[in-house]
Amino acid sequence: KATSITAPYENIWAGLSDGEAASVIAWLFGQPALNLTASENATAWDNTILLVELMIPNKTDAVAYIDSGAATPARYARVVIDNRATVDPYFQDLLVGPLPLNNATASYQPLEFPLTRKTEGKVRNVGADDDDALYSAWLYKIGAEMVDITMDLWGGSAMGADNDTLDIWGIDPLWQDDGRIIRWDSFWNTPNDIFDAETLLPLGLYFKSDVTGRDPSQWKLEGWLYNNIFYNTTEEFRAAYWSGAVEKLAANVDGTWAHTDQQGDVLPSDANYPPTTIAPSGSRFSLDYERKYVEWMDYTFFIGFSRDVGMTLYDIRFKGERILYELGLQEALAHYAGGDPVQSGTSYLDSYYGFGPYAFELVPGYDCPEYATYLNSTFYVDETTHTHLNSICLFEFTADYPMQRHSTSEYVANTKNTYFSVRSVSTVGNYDYMFTYSFYTDGSIGVEVRASGYIQSAYYTTGSDFGWKIQEALSGSMHDHVLNFKADFDILGTANSMQFVENVPVSRVFPWSNGKARNTMQLQRSTLTTEDEARFDWGVNSAKQVLVVNTDAPNKWGESRGYRVLPSFGAMHLTVKDSSNLVNAARWAEYDIQVTRQHDHEPRAAHAYNSQDVNDPPVDFSAFFNGESLEQEDLVLWLNVGMHHVPNTGDLPNTVFTTAHAGLTFAPNNYFDMDQSRRTVNMVRIN
Amino acid sequence: KATSITAPYENIWAGLSDGEAASVIAWLFGQPALNLTASENATAWDNTILLVELMIPNKTDAVAYIDSGAATPARYARVVIDNRATVDPYFQDLLVGPLPLNNATASYQPLEFPLTRKTEGKVRNVGADDDDALYSAWLYKIGAEMVDITMDLWGGSAMGADNDTLDIWGIDPLWQDDGRIIRWDSFWNTPNDIFDAETLLPLGLYFKSDVTGRDPSQWKLEGWLYNNIFYNTTEEFRAAYWSGAVEKLAANVDGTWAHTDQQGDVLPSDANYPPTTIAPSGSRFSLDYERKYVEWMDYTFFIGFSRDVGMTLYDIRFKGERILYELGLQEALAHYAGGDPVQSGTSYLDSYYGFGPYAFELVPGYDCPEYATYLNSTFYVDETTHTHLNSICLFEFTADYPMQRHSTSEYVANTKNTYFSVRSVSTVGNYDYMFTYSFYTDGSIGVEVRASGYIQSAYYTTGSDFGWKIQEALSGSMHDHVLNFKADFDILGTANSMQFVENVPVSRVFPWSNGKARNTMQLQRSTLTTEDEARFDWGVNSAKQVLVVNTDAPNKWGESRGYRVLPSFGAMHLTVKDSSNLVNAARWAEYDIQVTRQHDHEPRAAHAYNSQDVNDPPVDFSAFFNGESLEQEDLVLWLNVGMHHVPNTGDLPNTVFTTAHAGLTFAPNNYFDMDQSRRTVNMVRIN
Ligand SMILES: [Ca+2]
Ligand SMILES: [Ca+2]
Ligand SMILES: [Ca+2]
Ligand SMILES: [Ca+2]
Ligand SMILES: [Cu+2]
Ligand SMILES: [Cu+2]
Repeated sequence: KATSITAPYENIWAGLSDGEAASVIAWLFGQPALNLTASENATAWDNTILLVELMIPNKTDAVAYIDSGAATPARYARVVIDNRATVDPYFQDLLVGPLPLNNATASYQPLEFPLTRKTEGKVRNVGADDDDALYSAWLYKIGAEMVDITMDLWGGSAMGADNDTLDIWGIDPLWQDDGRIIRWDSFWNTPNDIFDAETLLPLGLYFKSDVTGRDPSQWKLEGWLYNNIFYNTTEEFRAAYWSGAVEKLAANVDGTWAHTDQQGDVLPSDANYPPTTIAPSGSRFSLDYERKYVEWMDYTFFIGFSRDVGMTLYDIRFKGERILYELGLQEALAHYAGGDPVQSGTSYLDSYYGFGPYAFELVPGYDCPEYATYLNSTFYVDETTHTHLNSICLFEFTADYPMQRHSTSEYVANTKNTYFSVRSVSTVGNYDYMFTYSFYTDGSIGVEVRASGYIQSAYYTTGSDFGWKIQEALSGSMHDHVLNFKADFDILGTANSMQFVENVPVSRVFPWSNGKARNTMQLQRSTLTTEDEARFDWGVNSAKQVLVVNTDAPNKWGESRGYRVLPSFGAMHLTVKDSSNLVNAARWAEYDIQVTRQHDHEPRAAHAYNSQDVNDPPVDFSAFFNGESLEQEDLVLWLNVGMHHVPNTGDLPNTVFTTAHAGLTFAPNNYFDMDQSRRTVNMVRIN
Repeated sequence: KATSITAPYENIWAGLSDGEAASVIAWLFGQPALNLTASENATAWDNTILLVELMIPNKTDAVAYIDSGAATPARYARVVIDNRATVDPYFQDLLVGPLPLNNATASYQPLEFPLTRKTEGKVRNVGADDDDALYSAWLYKIGAEMVDITMDLWGGSAMGADNDTLDIWGIDPLWQDDGRIIRWDSFWNTPNDIFDAETLLPLGLYFKSDVTGRDPSQWKLEGWLYNNIFYNTTEEFRAAYWSGAVEKLAANVDGTWAHTDQQGDVLPSDANYPPTTIAPSGSRFSLDYERKYVEWMDYTFFIGFSRDVGMTLYDIRFKGERILYELGLQEALAHYAGGDPVQSGTSYLDSYYGFGPYAFELVPGYDCPEYATYLNSTFYVDETTHTHLNSICLFEFTADYPMQRHSTSEYVANTKNTYFSVRSVSTVGNYDYMFTYSFYTDGSIGVEVRASGYIQSAYYTTGSDFGWKIQEALSGSMHDHVLNFKADFDILGTANSMQFVENVPVSRVFPWSNGKARNTMQLQRSTLTTEDEARFDWGVNSAKQVLVVNTDAPNKWGESRGYRVLPSFGAMHLTVKDSSNLVNAARWAEYDIQVTRQHDHEPRAAHAYNSQDVNDPPVDFSAFFNGESLEQEDLVLWLNVGMHHVPNTGDLPNTVFTTAHAGLTFAPNNYFDMDQSRRTVNMVRIN
């Protein structure tokens, strides 16, 4: 276990204590204007507290505290109220505090300043009836109405009955054109075993509903789609079906092909225990368990945790100097495309569900080495404290290759590559995202995300434009995973600049080249001046280096000290241009790299409820770009990684981490006088 | 240690036995026409045997043997003769055999067919006098002539004296314009300790020599360069120097900044033993030690080894089916650029030196895990057998992350990611290249190269166009590392095709979209038809999948079985266009991916002596492209990876492997019915 230490200052990003959360909830229930109902008693027509968590302090206040010894930033709670006691339901973000609450000073106010949309922290809730009326008064009714056909096609029903073997669900976000709220739903087979295989079992029958407003009696069924043929009404489809005019297509049915357990003959040597990493001297790092503060070799950092994005690292320092103020996930998009309306209409913005609540317990020896140290994560939803044990792991690991080596006829010198990682896994529905931050002895930092779990697949009726055929009636529905990370570098202070250094071919005459031009290359340097040019992609041929530097902090040789940012795998942005599904809800996905001037009012690239109003979302990332200067300012990098995922048979039953990964590397560039890994004693020179 | 087994057939790529090599050498000395002298007695004006090694059998013959039970291919030796007993010295490749040699059948013949240049396997030797006359009759004489100035500037001499503290060397390849052979050389400081730091100690004084022909008395000194000023003659430079008109610049001097040993305060926890991987059940793979044949889980392959390119893998199979006939390095280029003629003129083609002879003993616990199994490598130069002990390592390793995982509220399923790697390291001069081939349980294969060792740096006189200033008078000389790998995929036979599947944005109307176009994406498929389109780069935004498939071997669902090829880090090609240094000697470096129809006469993308005649090299890779069909043909992929390396202070004293790496992944794509990692028992499901 890690050595227990005390952090040099409070973890002001760690979240509320149980007592703080309880006090906020109690206090909110004392505010009649909020008209709150306890979650356990609430109907779809009551207002409830969805979330209570720490309002992450503004960087301005945080830095004053951690760098200049100012008081700890005043603590506030961020609260999300689900206002459903109205025909126009909405979510509202509130700021409640200061903490500890007392009746003299406590207040709540709309939490509007971190949003680009200025509507008092409010955004409509287009799914207010999802858990209740949507199914009982609509989807299951339609399922019941169609039971003749579902029985005939698949021998099952989806009508809310105990013996249902079918399920109904559909697009996310909902269509939001012309003031209407439109759903497309699909029938799915359900698994016949414990395995979570439903997303592999689409059945190819879709229906469209106008679910605008909260009165299901006013909702309208607007058509059916089967085998790529659209029917305007249920009657039309039923008539065609029973007339024999509808071709009956095969069903996708659960089976061992969808099960992750061991299959096939056991290889004899596989029964022996495989290589495994041990920590013979125990942990070599220190931890303030309570404050989630980590010290490993020359690194220190704090761990924060929130509902929307899960784990975030703060104040990452190397040799006492801050490299990053904040490093964390902002949002993960899975943008599907397909010939059917459900796949075509699916563009999950996963922070709607939240990475925090889905960061489950890790499996020692599998998710992390056996000897890893684990931390819990805590969040507060529905007025209750939820703690996920062992959902963050911390461990050292020695790579299978060294950090450095060199041989001559006289000697060989070689340095071990022992690094430190912090990891959490969030399983948002079908997919498991593994997030790993790694720290290397040379001062470089790695950000990695891997994806496993069940793919969401498509019924195979629309041919090869959108995926491979991977089973009897199944297409590996193509999709882009785009994950945005915020990297608030602070290189020797907050005044930083972006420098580009590109290798370019050149034909050039030299003083020594006899007047002849030589075909060679040189560096082309440039600087990012304003936010107008600050949304861009990694250059072609990996030739353009992207550097965050402090031009006021040259090293001994006059070069600006800084860090290089580079993709390590999966450099990409969203393929879709101006997505019909997302409109303005995920503008952050449009470029590989985006740089803004830091503002306390722009803490996050996205908002959990951007999907609720894609035309005018709470946070429209593109609004961050307003021409501000980026030269020697406090910069924030918003970096995308991901995968263009076109699932093939190798994704069955689960996607594997081998190719489904993406990452970034941050490497010192002229930051130190020399390689910092020279400090380790875990090296050898053999003469 | 690995279990000892017997390979299913002979390793026909493993190289000559000592006896075979000795018999070839003896027989060659019996051929008067060759006029050979034993290396140990030879002068620069004698013919010698440079190399005797196995002539790798033609694929046609090899496949007939391994697949169809034909006889083992006839064995031949490939011999390189260094013909220097002439005013026009040349290397010649000879084919000698068949083996075993007997006087009735043995013969030698020019080995011309694997070369694109048809000159009987001959190419001139522009360095015939490098080891002798070049220094004794030219470079040291110039050093002696300049000793007044070298003493004044640096307190040292480079004249072949025992107390020399300076060195002289220069460009590679030599300038080869207009029928002249031109050298540029530089003075370098020498290290004052064991460390191999000379390439960090340029002194900034350069001179140009016309060394055409073999008579040093006819060679001409054509000028000096110092502080970016060109002087036509020694007299002119000396006059300027002693008149005080020449600014005396600082020297680069060895010091701890150039030493790789531990430096700095020891971190307390670093004195404890770091995490280390052990193999608790011993090795779980099998090896035919003699035949260098490996079986690990579902994989089998043979290891070959040659002077030019070191380790090559042959007949890589998974579940008994061949995936790749051949996988190996072809050439490594380090193309420098700079404001001075030496850096500008340096474009090392490392197979000139050879990866085989520089594959040294690996350091257990550093280069490879402690428990790795090691093999030796053997090569024959100068009529002598050289064996490098433990220069290839083989090991299993368990990654710090799993192969697969999925959580639900009911269970968590998780599979270990234990993979198998084969590794060798070649230190060609200042750089150490670590080559690793890794095999994963899902059927994917990784190719990785990492670079460490000493950078070759530039004297800092030419400003910032070509590098960072990294020491008193030092620039991190910019250069591109480009490494070419041959991947002769054979997917279910040799009739294969290249398929591209690209995610493209599209605005499209669907039967269910009410006549409205939706902004979404789809797949755009295409096929490579001929070699005319077969030189290309990875697409922008990582959006284009490159697949090697067998369209005659659809899987159960009608999709072509195949493998996807993708870069895992360091996708790149050479920045320089039509390099003045290389001309036609490294056309393989021009694109990321190049595909040809396999021919026995095109076994390798390069030749060890391409640098000897860059205008008309033995192998001009671009000549492979002659419009042949690539549809269901035996295809070979020639894949480049590398680094655009602009060394910064973090490269001192040595480049570290953290960012200096590049790699490729080959992943099954619709090859199997489902993920093959389901076969392992090293998984868990916890309910
Ligand atoms: Ca701005
Ligand atoms: Ca910043
Ligand atoms: Ca050809
Ligand atoms: Ca082939
Ligand atoms: Cu996916
Ligand atoms: Cu390099």
